Amino acid sequence: MKNFKINPNEIEKRVNKLGSVGVKDGKLWRPIYTPEDKQAKELVSSWMIDEGLEAYEDTVGNLYGKLTPSNDKECNNKAILIGSHIDTVRDGGAYDGAAGIIVGISALSALNKKYGKPKIPVEVVALGEEEGSRFPSGYTGSRAIAVGLTDSDLEEVGEEGIALKRAMADAGYDPSSAQLSKRDDIGKYIELHIEQGPVLENTKTKIGLVENITGIAVLSIEVHGREDHAGTTPMDMRLDALVSASKLISQIPSLAANISTTATATVGTMTVEPGSSNVVPNWVKFLVDIRDVNSERLDRLKNLISDEAMALENDGCKVTVKCIIHELPIALDSGLTDMAEEVVKKEDIPYLRMNSGAGHDAQVFAEKVPTCLLFVPCKDGRSHTPKEYASPEDLALGAEVLAELLHKLAW
Amino acid sequence: MKNFKINPNEIEKRVNKLGSVGVKDGKLWRPIYTPEDKQAKELVSSWMIDEGLEAYEDTVGNLYGKLTPSNDKECNNKAILIGSHIDTVRDGGAYDGAAGIIVGISALSALNKKYGKPKIPVEVVALGEEEGSRFPSGYTGSRAIAVGLTDSDLEEVGEEGIALKRAMADAGYDPSSAQLSKRDDIGKYIELHIEQGPVLENTKTKIGLVENITGIAVLSIEVHGREDHAGTTPMDMRLDALVSASKLISQIPSLAANISTTATATVGTMTVEPGSSNVVPNWVKFLVDIRDVNSERLDRLKNLISDEAMALENDGCKVTVKCIIHELPIALDSGLTDMAEEVVKKEDIPYLRMNSGAGHDAQVFAEKVPTCLLFVPCKDGRSHTPKEYASPEDLALGAEVLAELLHKLAW
Repeated sequence: MKNFKINPNEIEKRVNKLGSVGVKDGKLWRPIYTPEDKQAKELVSSWMIDEGLEAYEDTVGNLYGKLTPSNDKECNNKAILIGSHIDTVRDGGAYDGAAGIIVGISALSALNKKYGKPKIPVEVVALGEEEGSRFPSGYTGSRAIAVGLTDSDLEEVGEEGIALKRAMADAGYDPSSAQLSKRDDIGKYIELHIEQGPVLENTKTKIGLVENITGIAVLSIEVHGREDHAGTTPMDMRLDALVSASKLISQIPSLAANISTTATATVGTMTVEPGSSNVVPNWVKFLVDIRDVNSERLDRLKNLISDEAMALENDGCKVTVKCIIHELPIALDSGLTDMAEEVVKKEDIPYLRMNSGAGHDAQVFAEKVPTCLLFVPCKDGRSHTPKEYASPEDLALGAEVLAELLHKLAW
Repeated sequence: MKNFKINPNEIEKRVNKLGSVGVKDGKLWRPIYTPEDKQAKELVSSWMIDEGLEAYEDTVGNLYGKLTPSNDKECNNKAILIGSHIDTVRDGGAYDGAAGIIVGISALSALNKKYGKPKIPVEVVALGEEEGSRFPSGYTGSRAIAVGLTDSDLEEVGEEGIALKRAMADAGYDPSSAQLSKRDDIGKYIELHIEQGPVLENTKTKIGLVENITGIAVLSIEVHGREDHAGTTPMDMRLDALVSASKLISQIPSLAANISTTATATVGTMTVEPGSSNVVPNWVKFLVDIRDVNSERLDRLKNLISDEAMALENDGCKVTVKCIIHELPIALDSGLTDMAEEVVKKEDIPYLRMNSGAGHDAQVFAEKVPTCLLFVPCKDGRSHTPKEYASPEDLALGAEVLAELLHKLAW
């Protein structure tokens, strides 16, 4: 890049160091309000301070690093927030979330070194519990800032049987002050994240400019057949729940393709009962994860799969379909995305305007303020695994693009 | 029946009484060499004695009840053996196996009362461990009699990690004498069993005359795809192991139907990994239980399914197919079956010449001596479940047919 040269080695060192915090028995897991979360924030806070940012935590434990304008007192401009999440899934990787925080710190540091203080406040934030690996709703940190945590949010109970507010208090944060984390002084949110998919790598592009974050519907489908002896029951006297379910599952890719190229539908988990090799299955349950960036198409695909599932009853089995999750797609800010496009175009960086098939903190902020989401490639599209990897060079290039964009916005 | 009227109530009482031996927490399980097995044999032995049979055990614990001819010393005729197994599957029913023993005792008792001693020895036997629920090979009792247990048979280790010979010794039988249970003085074997399928009930027939016992091949199929994020990986960049596997499984009924009406193919168990709703499955493993009464057709269906499985590689997944079980079909003795048919025809009993899709002790004896297998209907085709049921009237009719057949053969 013309203006900034950000050091890939520094980013790589930090990614590896943060990625070692929360590793037990070779597996990384760093959920909110744990000693690992605390240790990780201490480490990130030290980097923030090293790079000349003012580090502070809000009342629920989101960690900020701020560049305050020299004329801060008179400044009525709302802050630009950049960031991502510091938590990980169980047995996760070192890049998902962490990369956005580390790259954000590098970008602010480079800007500060080159141009001094910004005209409007710029802050980088390390958000808690995006993944929902401890408290299933997820996006805890970003929701606390963008919309505030409600009493019912604070009552959410995780796998261990502990409520969010109890875990919060145990970690030294006062749940009765949680609402104080809500901010109305944020003007824009910008997040850099690894793609978590194979598109950038496959298209040999370096930056993804995200236009929409996918909507998601999850159908829970049960097929009820009849348990019969695999040897003594003629084929034409059976109600085989697995054969019926397989008819639907084998059709799912073509059903999704009929809707759009952005639509996905996936069956990742399946239970077959009674589960003996010599017994015809009488019950099969599976979840269908359905996504599209367009709300109307998401509905159509959901209805199509649901209708095809019910049509399995023509075989004699009974079918139940329940929609257990339905989250609408979120459009990101086209003005900010266009501005980011100008940056990459000007620098001849190969890029792609694309969509995100995974959820991100950006979607929480996008409901409140203009929001921009940038992707960098990751190896083989892998994420949520120790194999997750993004090259230091790609991350540094992402940091440079982010810095250039921030420069346009705040200096 | 003209000659015999066997009391259904007596049979029902005994089925229920024997079916209560081995019930723990509401579930019946009576494997070999357990206190429940011993208690069951004491009960059956007392019935044998009550009905005028000489009760004795062989060296491996098979329980016999014998009617000896009056001229036994001069009699060189080989014995007719009738029987079935006294063990059950886990959480099994009261009829599978037990019905054949109880009906056999009733038939011998009726014959003895009406006609006195037979011309040739007739024995009813309660065989151990047909199901293989403790020692997986199964057919332990019948193999001990028909072919003798080998040293390697005695070394077989069950789920608990205990070898057959150790369990045998612990139950008071000397494993070094196991070979003494092998008999060369048996001329015929006749077994009555519940059908364990729906055919007799559906065709409103009362007796099944079994011509063949099915052969069975089990294929273990693994489909290796690639783990990908369900949201971020476009449908056309996936190698979804479950979608591929489902294509095969949904075709299985038509593949079997293409081969014959007696062919069956069943997928009863399936593992999907990594097993998360938002991750494309990278590995699916399932077993295909393939059966036919004709060896050549069994081979054809096995090869057809195997070929179709390998053809899934056209989608990009890798497939492995292993045949882990291959047992040939067994033909029963047509002379004995014809003789049984004469009996039911003469008495106007609705019957069916049919095949057995399940394995039975009869198949072990059939390799050595002329063997006959008779089925009686069971409710809804259910077996290997507490819901297993055969009506006392159907069982008594079976006992009468068995008695009539034995009368022709031995009196």
